[in-house]
Amino acid sequence: MKINVSIFGVSGYTGTQLVSLLVSHKNVNIVGIFGNKTLGKNLKEFFPHDSNIPDIKISDYKKFNFDTCDLVFLCLPHSQSQLLVKSLKSCRVIDLSADYRIRDEKKYKIWYEKEHLDKNMLKNFTYGLSEINRKKIKKSRYVANPGCYPTSVLLPLIPIFKEKIVEEDSIIIDSKSGVSGAGKNPSKEKLFFEINENFYAYNIEKHRHLGEIEQEIKLYKKSINITFIPHLLPISRGILSTIYIKGNSKKFVRVQKFLKEYYSNDMFIKFMPSGKVPSLRMVNGTNNILIGLFQDFNRKNIIIVTCIDNLIKGAAGQAIQNMNIMFGFDEKESLILKRTNP
Amino acid sequence: MKINVSIFGVSGYTGTQLVSLLVSHKNVNIVGIFGNKTLGKNLKEFFPHDSNIPDIKISDYKKFNFDTCDLVFLCLPHSQSQLLVKSLKSCRVIDLSADYRIRDEKKYKIWYEKEHLDKNMLKNFTYGLSEINRKKIKKSRYVANPGCYPTSVLLPLIPIFKEKIVEEDSIIIDSKSGVSGAGKNPSKEKLFFEINENFYAYNIEKHRHLGEIEQEIKLYKKSINITFIPHLLPISRGILSTIYIKGNSKKFVRVQKFLKEYYSNDMFIKFMPSGKVPSLRMVNGTNNILIGLFQDFNRKNIIIVTCIDNLIKGAAGQAIQNMNIMFGFDEKESLILKRTNP
Amino acid sequence: MKINVSIFGVSGYTGTQLVSLLVSHKNVNIVGIFGNKTLGKNLKEFFPHDSNIPDIKISDYKKFNFDTCDLVFLCLPHSQSQLLVKSLKSCRVIDLSADYRIRDEKKYKIWYEKEHLDKNMLKNFTYGLSEINRKKIKKSRYVANPGCYPTSVLLPLIPIFKEKIVEEDSIIIDSKSGVSGAGKNPSKEKLFFEINENFYAYNIEKHRHLGEIEQEIKLYKKSINITFIPHLLPISRGILSTIYIKGNSKKFVRVQKFLKEYYSNDMFIKFMPSGKVPSLRMVNGTNNILIGLFQDFNRKNIIIVTCIDNLIKGAAGQAIQNMNIMFGFDEKESLILKRTNP
Amino acid sequence: MKINVSIFGVSGYTGTQLVSLLVSHKNVNIVGIFGNKTLGKNLKEFFPHDSNIPDIKISDYKKFNFDTCDLVFLCLPHSQSQLLVKSLKSCRVIDLSADYRIRDEKKYKIWYEKEHLDKNMLKNFTYGLSEINRKKIKKSRYVANPGCYPTSVLLPLIPIFKEKIVEEDSIIIDSKSGVSGAGKNPSKEKLFFEINENFYAYNIEKHRHLGEIEQEIKLYKKSINITFIPHLLPISRGILSTIYIKGNSKKFVRVQKFLKEYYSNDMFIKFMPSGKVPSLRMVNGTNNILIGLFQDFNRKNIIIVTCIDNLIKGAAGQAIQNMNIMFGFDEKESLILKRTNP
Repeated sequence: MKINVSIFGVSGYTGTQLVSLLVSHKNVNIVGIFGNKTLGKNLKEFFPHDSNIPDIKISDYKKFNFDTCDLVFLCLPHSQSQLLVKSLKSCRVIDLSADYRIRDEKKYKIWYEKEHLDKNMLKNFTYGLSEINRKKIKKSRYVANPGCYPTSVLLPLIPIFKEKIVEEDSIIIDSKSGVSGAGKNPSKEKLFFEINENFYAYNIEKHRHLGEIEQEIKLYKKSINITFIPHLLPISRGILSTIYIKGNSKKFVRVQKFLKEYYSNDMFIKFMPSGKVPSLRMVNGTNNILIGLFQDFNRKNIIIVTCIDNLIKGAAGQAIQNMNIMFGFDEKESLILKRTNP
Repeated sequence: MKINVSIFGVSGYTGTQLVSLLVSHKNVNIVGIFGNKTLGKNLKEFFPHDSNIPDIKISDYKKFNFDTCDLVFLCLPHSQSQLLVKSLKSCRVIDLSADYRIRDEKKYKIWYEKEHLDKNMLKNFTYGLSEINRKKIKKSRYVANPGCYPTSVLLPLIPIFKEKIVEEDSIIIDSKSGVSGAGKNPSKEKLFFEINENFYAYNIEKHRHLGEIEQEIKLYKKSINITFIPHLLPISRGILSTIYIKGNSKKFVRVQKFLKEYYSNDMFIKFMPSGKVPSLRMVNGTNNILIGLFQDFNRKNIIIVTCIDNLIKGAAGQAIQNMNIMFGFDEKESLILKRTNP
Repeated sequence: MKINVSIFGVSGYTGTQLVSLLVSHKNVNIVGIFGNKTLGKNLKEFFPHDSNIPDIKISDYKKFNFDTCDLVFLCLPHSQSQLLVKSLKSCRVIDLSADYRIRDEKKYKIWYEKEHLDKNMLKNFTYGLSEINRKKIKKSRYVANPGCYPTSVLLPLIPIFKEKIVEEDSIIIDSKSGVSGAGKNPSKEKLFFEINENFYAYNIEKHRHLGEIEQEIKLYKKSINITFIPHLLPISRGILSTIYIKGNSKKFVRVQKFLKEYYSNDMFIKFMPSGKVPSLRMVNGTNNILIGLFQDFNRKNIIIVTCIDNLIKGAAGQAIQNMNIMFGFDEKESLILKRTNP
Repeated sequence: MKINVSIFGVSGYTGTQLVSLLVSHKNVNIVGIFGNKTLGKNLKEFFPHDSNIPDIKISDYKKFNFDTCDLVFLCLPHSQSQLLVKSLKSCRVIDLSADYRIRDEKKYKIWYEKEHLDKNMLKNFTYGLSEINRKKIKKSRYVANPGCYPTSVLLPLIPIFKEKIVEEDSIIIDSKSGVSGAGKNPSKEKLFFEINENFYAYNIEKHRHLGEIEQEIKLYKKSINITFIPHLLPISRGILSTIYIKGNSKKFVRVQKFLKEYYSNDMFIKFMPSGKVPSLRMVNGTNNILIGLFQDFNRKNIIIVTCIDNLIKGAAGQAIQNMNIMFGFDEKESLILKRTNP
């Protein structure tokens, strides 16, 4: 079985990554690629030295007949998807932007500091955290693909709050991301000279991804205070999140046992052997999340360390995983990747 | 006034940094340089293209007359200083290793997993955190120069616990360090290929610097649980510590006001303007610690972010600052550095 | 059809890369993995988070029955293969070390500064430059896999000298390589701190790969002076060679036309569109060589710029390509790789 | 003696570097700082954590009285200086842009592809290659500060052509530069993600600095073909040029002896000991050029390898050196810099 897929936006890092994974998917025909700035160019131009890229022109979506298109991926800058979705009535949609992740329009306004332009659709989107919402995703027409930081944080946390393994009402998340998370739009802050040999925390007092993290955790644990501080690493890819939850040795053993069992059938969720630390090199180039569970020296805290490739598990890979779930394909199709370190 | 100074160990990163700063100190004559592996070489060989390096041979300390030597800096690998100190009776000592930082021999054994070989001397050493222990350092013959992580953590924390501005009994420290902190001894883990484009937490369950941090904070606040997790950055220099303490907006304003006043006369302690984040580039190449104070989105935590150059403020720079204090020199002599970014 | 393959040495960068490519080869069973330092470990330990790695123990080759083994890959440090080959009588051999690349024992002594220990075998090895020596490789039992620098240089040069498109008797090769070419053996020079933010030429007056380059070019052009200067890039992978040959515009057009036609059926040899420059990012993670042909401003020189991934086309990838040729498999089997930039 | 100095443009890498060096110059008062985008800001804002930066506002040069200003540094984007110089009648000028480096207006048009807007002034500028043109610079009112690549190339080459030590009519220059040479203007090509783990040659067929190199060498050697190929290194600072000239061992020894004697009194020109290779780390943060002289394996070529910090010796440092020469100050004043590696 093959489905017809089209993609909005291929010039950004997420869109490029999506195409490079999708072209080898055995159940996918890429039938349309749309872009304003790139209109008329051949897709091959963006991947000049890759084999497998289909010979397809970037076209104007307004002239495209979506009747035979089964699925649309939106890889557009934030706030552009909300102008488009209503016009894509005949096909399913996976939106990789942040536009439909926050279901409550008031919360959207708090986090994004403007009115949402497609409020009625907000509730129709499923939050596409593959392993957690698999059943719902399977039945969804609209999927909002999670943010990269939330993916690294929610996968270990939701199960332990959902099943009340942990009942702490306070949690600290110290995350570190490579620069590709910030996108390809040129700005002084993203220049090589400014990032190289540097490191800093940013958006300390307000980062939009906290909105997603709070929304999803509070589904299972109403009263909780979440502190989330992101930092910028001088590397291209990868997110490492260090998560601190109060808990003694007994609680730690319980969390460890529970999480491993909970995810025992999920091939993209991997646990480090006891005492071994995960690293970004171990996941970059894959759709895996790698989880290490530790206690601090004084056995008062549980430390969860997670690593993902922000462009794959944190974006394009999870989007394909969601497509695989929605259409009943093998969930790992086109997602078993050979890593080339680094 | 000039003092005669000699140095043990110049081939490591700390020793090299110390010499390069010391040669332009107007009150210092370097009279002896000692090293086993480097015996007989000229100091100039280690700085082939620097001006100012004195023409001095690396000699055998056993044949050196320490009678006219005022001060010895020890830049040796850990556990070698404890064999030497007793033989340096006539001169003052600043030890840049970890050997005399832990004053309690039992605690030393817990953290370093062996017996200390010079237990009686432990209590004679002053913990050389310049701005905090200035008065004691001034009168000391023996100074244990603090570790790099502890320096980045203790400078903002000690005053607020000492003056009971904060009385929380739990604190989380998430630190990130460049590779020079790990020294120059070759190992697979420190190879370029292994560090480049990588990032990870390490020694999560036990890092020796927690021993120093606990020892110094507990002088002022007995019952406190400190969680300290270090991470390795793929950069050469710099430590950034993100410190989490529970506290509401009122408490935050108090901490902010108090700390700025407390350090208002300390030229190496600098605060970021409100809302601005510090970065490693702003401190690398200097003896400064740069402190940013923030609240998280939900105003439940105080976030302290500090940046230092681990080889300067975290090692050789602070050692010279301590020398300046001990001998009554201008505290900033040879420590006002021009940064070359990055 | 499936062949049985065994591998000596998997802990180095080349061996690791070879295994990671070979495990998805549809015509290969890995039946033996041998190593001294790694004896008894499971191959999975070296690839803890990769799927597909077979469950196989690293064993002692002396106890292994090579009768049913069709092919042995040697990924050993230089000078160890020459002790082994004679004992591997029943199977074909692809040696990824430098041991059998120089066919003349006297030349070997000049370049490697010691006697070869298996002189008689030297002439039995085919120099495994896949696209150039394909016919000979097909019939060979013993293949010496080329060095990384020579691969980047010989592929564009041999055809133009062989077919006398160029008859200059002097050529300058300025090559730049990432650090993985230097291997995994720890040394001070390879530490992150020493390589990071640094760049230098090395082995200017004598680099062993010049021996290979001269040997292979002089097969087609006896009197030629080759200057080869390697440089070390602060990156993990990739070799870029800038090659300077005297030649006017007419000669340039001829070289360009000739080379593109010569390699028109070679899927791993790719040419940049006119005026576009190749970069390491375009080839890293692939088995491709990317060639750009240019003239200098004054139209007196032809500039050939080539890029390869030193661990793939410059080592493990070319070794597999040679295996595919030797056994009549699809030449690109297990070598069509998805790149993850960077 | 103190002179009054003003500076146009401080927000770029060159301007920032110039100010940071100039503030500690004992013969300089900074009296004016001019900038369009930065108008009204305090100079301290650009150096928030540096001591020594004077408290001076960025002002409008049109309202500034240049009568008491002795010297103006122009650190403006290329093509802006040529609009300004005529209005600065009362003071001396050191232009760090490329505007007045090419003395022949026709050549200017070839290299810069537009008409020069201040043709009459072209001949009044001295090419400020400090060590070569010292006598002329001393008497000059107008100095065009050399480009970074030309500085790295002309310092070793001019003496040997001038004194006819070498009479080859062909020379190859393979240069590699860190990214700061490309300036601070944001563009996709300069983003961290695009530069990191990458390397490529650029402007192969035409780079403007070849114009400068040809102009200056042809003063001493009319008929010569110069090939110049620049490459972009994934590092922040530094240029390494590898220069190839035909020459046997006898010629090599002569060049070596001659150059060392020629520059024996120039403190910023340093030679590597025989057989030792220079590296960017050895010069970054200094005003030095480090020169290594080698022969290739076959003793047919002389290889000159030079290293400079492109923002210091290749820009701001040489500009200050020129000022020191023009005003009779100690030539090394404010240029003896402590390096902090890397």
